[in-house]
Amino acid sequence: MVTPLENQENRVIGIDIGGTFIKFALMNSLSVIDRKWSIPTNISEKGRFIPEEICFSIRKTLGDDSLKIVTGIGIGVPGPISPDGRMVVQAVNLDWKELPLKQMIEDELGIEVCLLNDANAAALGEMWQGAAKGKQNFLFVTLGTGVGGGIVINGQVLNGCHSAGGEIGHIPVRSDEDRLCGCGGRNCLETFASANGLALSMRKKLETVGEQWSEMTPPIIFEKAEQNNEYALQVLNEFTDVLGQALAGIMNTIDVEEVVIGGGLSEAGDALLIPLKKKMDKYVFPQIKEHFSFKKATLGNEAGIFGAVYAYLNVNK
Amino acid sequence: MVTPLENQENRVIGIDIGGTFIKFALMNSLSVIDRKWSIPTNISEKGRFIPEEICFSIRKTLGDDSLKIVTGIGIGVPGPISPDGRMVVQAVNLDWKELPLKQMIEDELGIEVCLLNDANAAALGEMWQGAAKGKQNFLFVTLGTGVGGGIVINGQVLNGCHSAGGEIGHIPVRSDEDRLCGCGGRNCLETFASANGLALSMRKKLETVGEQWSEMTPPIIFEKAEQNNEYALQVLNEFTDVLGQALAGIMNTIDVEEVVIGGGLSEAGDALLIPLKKKMDKYVFPQIKEHFSFKKATLGNEAGIFGAVYAYLNVNK
Repeated sequence: MVTPLENQENRVIGIDIGGTFIKFALMNSLSVIDRKWSIPTNISEKGRFIPEEICFSIRKTLGDDSLKIVTGIGIGVPGPISPDGRMVVQAVNLDWKELPLKQMIEDELGIEVCLLNDANAAALGEMWQGAAKGKQNFLFVTLGTGVGGGIVINGQVLNGCHSAGGEIGHIPVRSDEDRLCGCGGRNCLETFASANGLALSMRKKLETVGEQWSEMTPPIIFEKAEQNNEYALQVLNEFTDVLGQALAGIMNTIDVEEVVIGGGLSEAGDALLIPLKKKMDKYVFPQIKEHFSFKKATLGNEAGIFGAVYAYLNVNK
Repeated sequence: MVTPLENQENRVIGIDIGGTFIKFALMNSLSVIDRKWSIPTNISEKGRFIPEEICFSIRKTLGDDSLKIVTGIGIGVPGPISPDGRMVVQAVNLDWKELPLKQMIEDELGIEVCLLNDANAAALGEMWQGAAKGKQNFLFVTLGTGVGGGIVINGQVLNGCHSAGGEIGHIPVRSDEDRLCGCGGRNCLETFASANGLALSMRKKLETVGEQWSEMTPPIIFEKAEQNNEYALQVLNEFTDVLGQALAGIMNTIDVEEVVIGGGLSEAGDALLIPLKKKMDKYVFPQIKEHFSFKKATLGNEAGIFGAVYAYLNVNK
């Protein structure tokens, strides 16, 4: 059953397409949310049903009356968007390649669509209503299954000339190891500094010392470290060293005023953030050191839907 | 003796302050040069005579009549410029710290001054009249005594929030070595990828293998490599690997359309550029690989004076 909206001012729909769920929010231009819902991501048959399932879910949830006051839709996609903003170049998790998603949704719903990369959406969300509120120059880092990034310079996302702006998870790390990355590269930052990378480092360490743990998730690694388990401490020290050094290198390149850390791993809070900031201070250029702010993201997995709405509103200003 | 100028249209002076020479050029807004000259850099007494010697040299060379048609001065400085563009934050080679250079020159000559960092000036010069002509998004890399960089995004130099934008020479490199950098950091990119870094790597290699060379400059290292000297080849392979990997990491962050290599080491030409491009292609993100241009700078040590003039003209547009 569709409940009518309280007032009839213009609304925007923010969508965040993830590998497991597609999140939706209907909100106004002041980011007040009327409705929030999600559907499972149907990745069968190369994700071909996703666009129509998105449209169907919007129609069903909002009903025709509410749909009339929706002026635009912002969609965060887990992959690069073509520089003209019309096409999903690729989305590995959804098995999409060169999908004209903007046109597809616009044709079906008759509402203007703005596409952007999901990490860029999360960065804009944190700028609009989260940790980076009021900042115009910052780096958003998402530490989850992989490592993503969004760079905002003068209030604008740096999408890049090949839609690879902020793809910091694929900065190569010099290492004696040989870790294959999903992108085909070797020793990309995310093979070390993601949840998966952390678990792999821990597994390797335990193999070396001949110890076994029944479970090995990031929360357990942080818990063991808190109990002063020396192997967990060593692995986390190396983890923050690799990541802190890479982030320092980024700062010495783009020199922004703030770094915001999001993604599942950021839930470790100070246990991650304090040593990571120390490593950054060790490696960053002297005139930046201690002169940038360093924060945990505040919007969690809602950053993307806020950022998608913000992107729509600002592309169409 | 001062020769009068042929016509009386407006002129701009471009200045490039180096550690050894200060270069000057008088040109019009189409980059046609009327005069070019230089003076030695007087670094005595913490470089305190430099501002007045610049003014004196301009007056003496141009004479009062020609000075009247100079509408502005752009100055490239070997150090960071404060975000408001008024102050040299620091210039280690000149022993300057917090010098209000803009005001000093303006007070003395009564002509508006625009300050910028020398690597940024060289980047803009290459964009205006050199290898990056027509490009709006590129990375300029200068490989000389140190390693400098200038990042141009949408036609604007990224000066950064702490005047450290493009300071790519100070990206930390993961290494078992412990090379102290002039900035106080350890294993900064320039401790490996500059002329000095290259010479140090060669010296270390020769010590290890017990060989001695009478001279060890970059040109000699490239010459030995061309003669298939295995140690020179190994050192240059490691040199391009470290540099190519760092540049690939930068590309995966800012994703620009072109990389321009300047500075003294670029004089090695294809002997450096071809292997360096190969290393970049090895490490760069798949969607960027082979889709960016990679060029040698074309303006040599005149890039800075062109860029200083361009900066003045564009700040005052």
